[in-house]
Amino acid sequence: MSEFKPVTSHVVKKLRLLLGKENVLTQQEEMKPYSYDEAPLPKPHIPELVVKPRDTTEVAKVLALANEVRIPVTPRGGGTGLSGGAIPILGGIVLSLEKMNRIKEIDEDNFMVVVEPGVLLKDLYQAVESRGLYYPLYTGEKSAHIGGNVATNAGGMRAVKYGVTRNFVLGLEAVLPTGQVVRTGGKFVKCSTAYDLTQLLVGSEGTLAVITEITLRLITPPGWQEVIFIPFPGLHQAIKAVPEILKQAVPVMGLEFLEKDAIDIVEKDLGLELPFHEHDAFLLGILEGNSKEEVYQAATRVAEVCTKNGAIDVYIPMSARARRKLLEAREKLYPALKRTGAIEVIDVVVPRSQIANFVAMVKDISQRYGMPIVATGHAGDGNVHLQPMGRGMDGGEWATKLPRVMEEVYRAGVSLGGTISGEHGLGFEKKKYLEIAMSREQIDLMARLKRAFDPNYILNPGKIFDEG
Amino acid sequence: MSEFKPVTSHVVKKLRLLLGKENVLTQQEEMKPYSYDEAPLPKPHIPELVVKPRDTTEVAKVLALANEVRIPVTPRGGGTGLSGGAIPILGGIVLSLEKMNRIKEIDEDNFMVVVEPGVLLKDLYQAVESRGLYYPLYTGEKSAHIGGNVATNAGGMRAVKYGVTRNFVLGLEAVLPTGQVVRTGGKFVKCSTAYDLTQLLVGSEGTLAVITEITLRLITPPGWQEVIFIPFPGLHQAIKAVPEILKQAVPVMGLEFLEKDAIDIVEKDLGLELPFHEHDAFLLGILEGNSKEEVYQAATRVAEVCTKNGAIDVYIPMSARARRKLLEAREKLYPALKRTGAIEVIDVVVPRSQIANFVAMVKDISQRYGMPIVATGHAGDGNVHLQPMGRGMDGGEWATKLPRVMEEVYRAGVSLGGTISGEHGLGFEKKKYLEIAMSREQIDLMARLKRAFDPNYILNPGKIFDEG
Repeated sequence: MSEFKPVTSHVVKKLRLLLGKENVLTQQEEMKPYSYDEAPLPKPHIPELVVKPRDTTEVAKVLALANEVRIPVTPRGGGTGLSGGAIPILGGIVLSLEKMNRIKEIDEDNFMVVVEPGVLLKDLYQAVESRGLYYPLYTGEKSAHIGGNVATNAGGMRAVKYGVTRNFVLGLEAVLPTGQVVRTGGKFVKCSTAYDLTQLLVGSEGTLAVITEITLRLITPPGWQEVIFIPFPGLHQAIKAVPEILKQAVPVMGLEFLEKDAIDIVEKDLGLELPFHEHDAFLLGILEGNSKEEVYQAATRVAEVCTKNGAIDVYIPMSARARRKLLEAREKLYPALKRTGAIEVIDVVVPRSQIANFVAMVKDISQRYGMPIVATGHAGDGNVHLQPMGRGMDGGEWATKLPRVMEEVYRAGVSLGGTISGEHGLGFEKKKYLEIAMSREQIDLMARLKRAFDPNYILNPGKIFDEG
Repeated sequence: MSEFKPVTSHVVKKLRLLLGKENVLTQQEEMKPYSYDEAPLPKPHIPELVVKPRDTTEVAKVLALANEVRIPVTPRGGGTGLSGGAIPILGGIVLSLEKMNRIKEIDEDNFMVVVEPGVLLKDLYQAVESRGLYYPLYTGEKSAHIGGNVATNAGGMRAVKYGVTRNFVLGLEAVLPTGQVVRTGGKFVKCSTAYDLTQLLVGSEGTLAVITEITLRLITPPGWQEVIFIPFPGLHQAIKAVPEILKQAVPVMGLEFLEKDAIDIVEKDLGLELPFHEHDAFLLGILEGNSKEEVYQAATRVAEVCTKNGAIDVYIPMSARARRKLLEAREKLYPALKRTGAIEVIDVVVPRSQIANFVAMVKDISQRYGMPIVATGHAGDGNVHLQPMGRGMDGGEWATKLPRVMEEVYRAGVSLGGTISGEHGLGFEKKKYLEIAMSREQIDLMARLKRAFDPNYILNPGKIFDEG
């Protein structure tokens, strides 16, 4: 790792001149919000400096300067990450993209939108939907920046039908750590022109370049949505039904699983009551199609398959309000878990046929360590969210147990053909587990790629992996 | 560029020992089929040696040896490429993947298939369809290897609905030029675990690693397909109708455009007659959905939109035979053009709203140089195929004109927001035009990525770009 230099008053002065005084923060108090993310128990690091560039040129100037004087730069979106990716663990400059929040173009003929990285997901939805277009991914938090979604290749509940963020990113503008600006891809789906830097930058967690513009593919909005909620006697039966559902060629957009402990927590935290809540395990399906008739037919087919595969009952809410209640319970589960004592969130992904086996292995680990783990997740795409709970333990006890639990959980996921992060990224919190999923040779190759972009290692250093 | 060494008798002996005598070719005559591809006028280079490894270990041994003694290695699939990517322009070893043609696993629960790179597309289709699954991409040539499709990120006619090869590749095993084996991705759609090497290798034309295993996503087969053939008074009207069609949220899988000159050539070459062939321009649509009723309704909607947008008539063939005839005419267009005097095939991609403008610019270039250019292509995704024709010119004349025509065509495409290759790759034939689409800084960055994988530059050297 390089030798970094501190931010001197000379550098502060220069940055103020470049960006304007109001876009350079130096006070501890005003920099606090830039020191953590939304992990259950983030480890805050206050940066030496926060800058808020307003355009690509300003980003390039900040990076060129930081590269010249060897100051670490941590790019930051909405701060809604869960792995510490936007936390300035080595100090230096936090480069916040919050002021680069313009929707530059909605292109109705090509079904594309061109945005700056600081656009909030909720603003993106509103803008494209007002023009009759649709960005179908919902990664779980509407105050997230689209730039952060791209940097982590965020997934979410709708991956069964739509895939993940990378499947919608067609082009990027990005600034290399040296200050050079590159443009990749464009308003086209097909591209066989040299290496795909677009896809390499997606998911690179701000370690290779700072993304300053994103071209996203859009679709026509779906005509109708139905929600279906299916109680099962146990998780194993619920998960066993998943491949059978998906073989039906029904337009399933999301397919989630929940267990009684998660339902209990969310009911208590949100003060609501869900139907059939006395049962042990549930599938929550979201179906989507052109017409009410088509989607309702599909829901009926899913109901039949589930009944054949051990479901106790099937609930298709008939009012928009009842549908909303179910979806909200799922969406607000993570904050509810956080408030109820979650100490970490793990997002292993396994082949979807292996979810039942994986969760069984996790329950065994949980029991052996005496650490409760609430399992929920995206049954349709194999992405399991595990929240180890600290309740009944003091800080010292769980701090000792947690890394061992995590290591065993990751090893279990990898042994079933999975990997350690399906959608959150590794950031700082999870990088030490990467060697469970990847050979040292492969990590060394990645370190060489990092150097090809960032010879002085100034951009988001200490994230994803350590150099060998 | 590195100093390469010739293949000595010592190396031949060693390779024979490693692979068996029958898997090492040294005779000029038997190596001839490995010297060219399917470009209209390929420039053949006979290698010094052809090897046919049978598994990953053998690939690794060949590469380790070649890397040690500094011999260039050109990986080769079905040889159906159009840009010289598989031609050993600097001599050395051709590494043919033809013997690695096993379908290792069809995973019905996860909708995935795991294959070796040498599997022919037609064998892949047959194998997965016999198990009730479907690989929806058809890149135009059933004797292509899936490995070649992955290496070039091949596209094809179905991209409007399904995207391109990279959208179906979830995992790879690959051998680095140093002989190390890496495994990337896996049987999951979601992955935020470090850099996405899978997507970096897709489309890298065998310059970064030799792909030895591919995990592909599959889907459930569509229930019904309809073809629709729509004559227009001119290309401009035809192409103007495209965004209007796609705004209808109809399940269009492919949407092609053809002009009279292409129709004439294919009719003459194949000895068939197409309906409405007296008109000047055509759209050929393929629609696909769950039921005959759904697809027919969609076709009717497309017909309405086209009629409102200047179509002369609409033809929906009612027999499987008539449908087949139309599709075959489109699929066999390239070989027909080749036999009729095409001297090059260009596959610029532009934003689909710009196709009409792009083709107008191409016609102007064609006229100025007095070189006929037949334009056809994937109207629905902006990928235009241009075949400059050599008729009426001697070799000297077109050889002088062609590079200038190509450069102007590429500049036109890039000026409209497009890029120079949508699906064929750059190989050797088109690398000299890369700087039209990309800055020298960006090409230098790619050269550094290349070095991170291939420090001695032995793997498919001289392709895609030259080092600065």
